Amino acid sequence: MSTVLPPRIRTYTPWLSRCERRLADIVGEGRPIVSEPARETLVAGGKRLRPLLVYCCAGPTESGEAGVTSAAAAVELVHMATLVHDDVLDDADLRRGQPTVLNRHGRERAIVTGDHLFALAFGELAAAGSTDAVSVLAQASLDLSQGEIAQAARTRDLNLGVDDYLDRVRLKTAALFTAACRLGSQLGASTRASALLSEFGHLIGVAFQIFDDILDVTGTADATGKARGADLRDGTVTLPMILAMRDDPSVTEPIARAMRGEGLEETCDLLSGHSGTGAAREEALRLVGRARQIATSGDLGAADGAALAEIADGVVDRYA
Amino acid sequence: MSTVLPPRIRTYTPWLSRCERRLADIVGEGRPIVSEPARETLVAGGKRLRPLLVYCCAGPTESGEAGVTSAAAAVELVHMATLVHDDVLDDADLRRGQPTVLNRHGRERAIVTGDHLFALAFGELAAAGSTDAVSVLAQASLDLSQGEIAQAARTRDLNLGVDDYLDRVRLKTAALFTAACRLGSQLGASTRASALLSEFGHLIGVAFQIFDDILDVTGTADATGKARGADLRDGTVTLPMILAMRDDPSVTEPIARAMRGEGLEETCDLLSGHSGTGAAREEALRLVGRARQIATSGDLGAADGAALAEIADGVVDRYA
Repeated sequence: MSTVLPPRIRTYTPWLSRCERRLADIVGEGRPIVSEPARETLVAGGKRLRPLLVYCCAGPTESGEAGVTSAAAAVELVHMATLVHDDVLDDADLRRGQPTVLNRHGRERAIVTGDHLFALAFGELAAAGSTDAVSVLAQASLDLSQGEIAQAARTRDLNLGVDDYLDRVRLKTAALFTAACRLGSQLGASTRASALLSEFGHLIGVAFQIFDDILDVTGTADATGKARGADLRDGTVTLPMILAMRDDPSVTEPIARAMRGEGLEETCDLLSGHSGTGAAREEALRLVGRARQIATSGDLGAADGAALAEIADGVVDRYA
Repeated sequence: MSTVLPPRIRTYTPWLSRCERRLADIVGEGRPIVSEPARETLVAGGKRLRPLLVYCCAGPTESGEAGVTSAAAAVELVHMATLVHDDVLDDADLRRGQPTVLNRHGRERAIVTGDHLFALAFGELAAAGSTDAVSVLAQASLDLSQGEIAQAARTRDLNLGVDDYLDRVRLKTAALFTAACRLGSQLGASTRASALLSEFGHLIGVAFQIFDDILDVTGTADATGKARGADLRDGTVTLPMILAMRDDPSVTEPIARAMRGEGLEETCDLLSGHSGTGAAREEALRLVGRARQIATSGDLGAADGAALAEIADGVVDRYA
């Protein structure tokens, strides 16, 4: 998302600020030994795309309700928890250009900080008083953990198919986007539109991950806050790789080599200009197009379709 | 707890079996890659002391309600999640005489399995329909993470005081006993007795941990399912050590040496027969005595005081 917010999203700035203050209050609770790394994770930033989805699906009128802010904060807390644990799993030093909790405080505190953020998320939703909301977030958390482990299980597996990839992305990334949309529609006045909004969340979640995977081979550390080729280095097989290998078996060998730590930059360059990466981008754009159709369908009840269309565009813009 | 259950607790066997079946159903959900290590953690056993507390605090009439079994299962799931993550933090190979998830499946799957068990716990409680219950469990989870990290922060710190120790034990162990009692009293008909039952949970939780810490120096692997001296090896300073060093500064040096991996068995032997360990046992017995007073006070509403008294006795018996 560009630094200048599109006009409709901009009207949500007061609610995003409210969410940010609530997040600061929540992570400030407890003893410094856990609140400090939790706070560092919060101030390291992030796009707050998931809270924005909660607000836009709740709609402009309902966004002022405290329960919507609690849901927005809870979704972001689960996201933060996942990032902290993912960095432990991936042995990652940097995230958004900042040292990770793992890097700064060690494995032990990172595992516990993630657990702490999970518990804060559920406590916040429970305090807001909706067991339906807790169920939605718990289901998303189950999906996240299954997605993470599904990814780990297929590390360096160059036979990973498109369907396997999409299944993993649904669990690992899209589930929390879907949950954000569902929570917003539950808490707002769009219950009837809940299925459509969930579908919207799913589509932009998958598109978001595909773009992220493309950026990992094409982007620079300046743009992404992390070193290029992280997926290759970690042995995570992504859609650009799968489609490139399908179109052109000769790229299999450089990918396998890069996963052994040899010729990482060259393989990134090779994939950057490859038709497989182009095809992955086409697929992501197709998903965004379907999401945009939902956003502009006029069937979304109280949800803010115009803002959701801007979010869909923003997912593309970030990678333009 | 001995293998022959005391008479009053025995009447809860049908509910404990129901909880066990519910746990098996819950951990069986999801893909084998996460359900398999979760199931292994379940079948590795455990005393199910926390579910039993939920039932006994709910009382004999209310224990048949599905919500009580959900709460009992959820508390045990959080306990299991904590064990799986603790074993990662402690690099533990064995738990209850069985290989840990860490040992069997590696660090990655162990972290994700713990996250998965946490999410299952909150999903189960939310499905049972009480946000108050979710709040209680979330707060206990926060306490658990703070206790775990408080312990890690004072590793090998031989200046740890009795109050520091008790504070850590309250968070790390007693919080979940307290939560079990609170959940039982909330879901049963003993809301008015909730404060007393929480205090009961706290007292036997702290006593349980003190006895556990004593057993770590006096016990055998046969009795405990893990090697003796684990606390010394991990640098976890416990009440027997604190009281022994306070009575007799000459034990400080052997303890420090054992924490560097030298003379572990000799230090265990030294502490086993030491007056400090005797004083720790006295303290635990004092706490159990107070818990017993609460159990037999007649002020517990629908809660089953007679069964709770047997639980208090059982905490002692295990270490007799």
